[in-house]
Amino acid sequence: MLYLEDLVVGSVTELGSVVVDRGELVAFADRFDPQLMHTDEAAAAGLPFGRIIASGWHTGSMWMRLYVERVLGDIANLGGLGIDELRFPAPVRAGDILTGAVEILEARPSPRKPDRGTMVVLGTMHNQNAELVMSLRSATRVARRPEPAGD
Amino acid sequence: MLYLEDLVVGSVTELGSVVVDRGELVAFADRFDPQLMHTDEAAAAGLPFGRIIASGWHTGSMWMRLYVERVLGDIANLGGLGIDELRFPAPVRAGDILTGAVEILEARPSPRKPDRGTMVVLGTMHNQNAELVMSLRSATRVARRPEPAGD
Repeated sequence: MLYLEDLVVGSVTELGSVVVDRGELVAFADRFDPQLMHTDEAAAAGLPFGRIIASGWHTGSMWMRLYVERVLGDIANLGGLGIDELRFPAPVRAGDILTGAVEILEARPSPRKPDRGTMVVLGTMHNQNAELVMSLRSATRVARRPEPAGD
Repeated sequence: MLYLEDLVVGSVTELGSVVVDRGELVAFADRFDPQLMHTDEAAAAGLPFGRIIASGWHTGSMWMRLYVERVLGDIANLGGLGIDELRFPAPVRAGDILTGAVEILEARPSPRKPDRGTMVVLGTMHNQNAELVMSLRSATRVARRPEPAGD
């Protein structure tokens, strides 16, 4: 288990890849973001992107899975604080291979509570053509390493 | 269809409600955010929130569904630009009844492209106890009303 003190600001971790499944893309959008640009291939042909594209919430959720598996699951996570600067500079399509990464931007102790602090990361997803398709900043409350019991 | 010119800055729209389904909460987290605080009731009993809570990505996605159904589906949406200040001030639990709202904060023409502009909204979700459980700012590219064809 990694505590706040163990986090190295500036370190970058590759998160591996996920293939965007067409069925999941459509099912996610049908449930959570039912716009024709996400759900209807025929309608999407007449829209700016030409083919259906993933909901941004789906792309973000796919990044989260990679982040939890490779990084966050090993950290003494006390809960998510929020996300900023979530951007989608290029569309995500069915069959795309998305590769995630995360850089630790900050790891600072709480000024008031000695047992915790805040980690801020920059998360990214690139597609198989090395295009950036998503970026975000995520802040998480992280425990500090417990003091050994004294006597 | 509503164009940029039709949007009223300061207007607030109630988006209706959604009940947080336990099965969906766990299934979403199993796929996209597999942390014990979201997936394992027994483990969650020993964690800060005491019971499983929804992934923030799930809560955001539930808000998106309400927003698309009640507001965004009627707007000449050219694509999402991004999300900022996504916050989760209180936990979301299975069985909660979440009620969404959206306020239009900005509706400004593009300085360069005469056919479009940017809409910025403040989105919120409150639970059945009137606690704010999520807030965000979302920016969307919106078409301006086409000029009637001249002669």
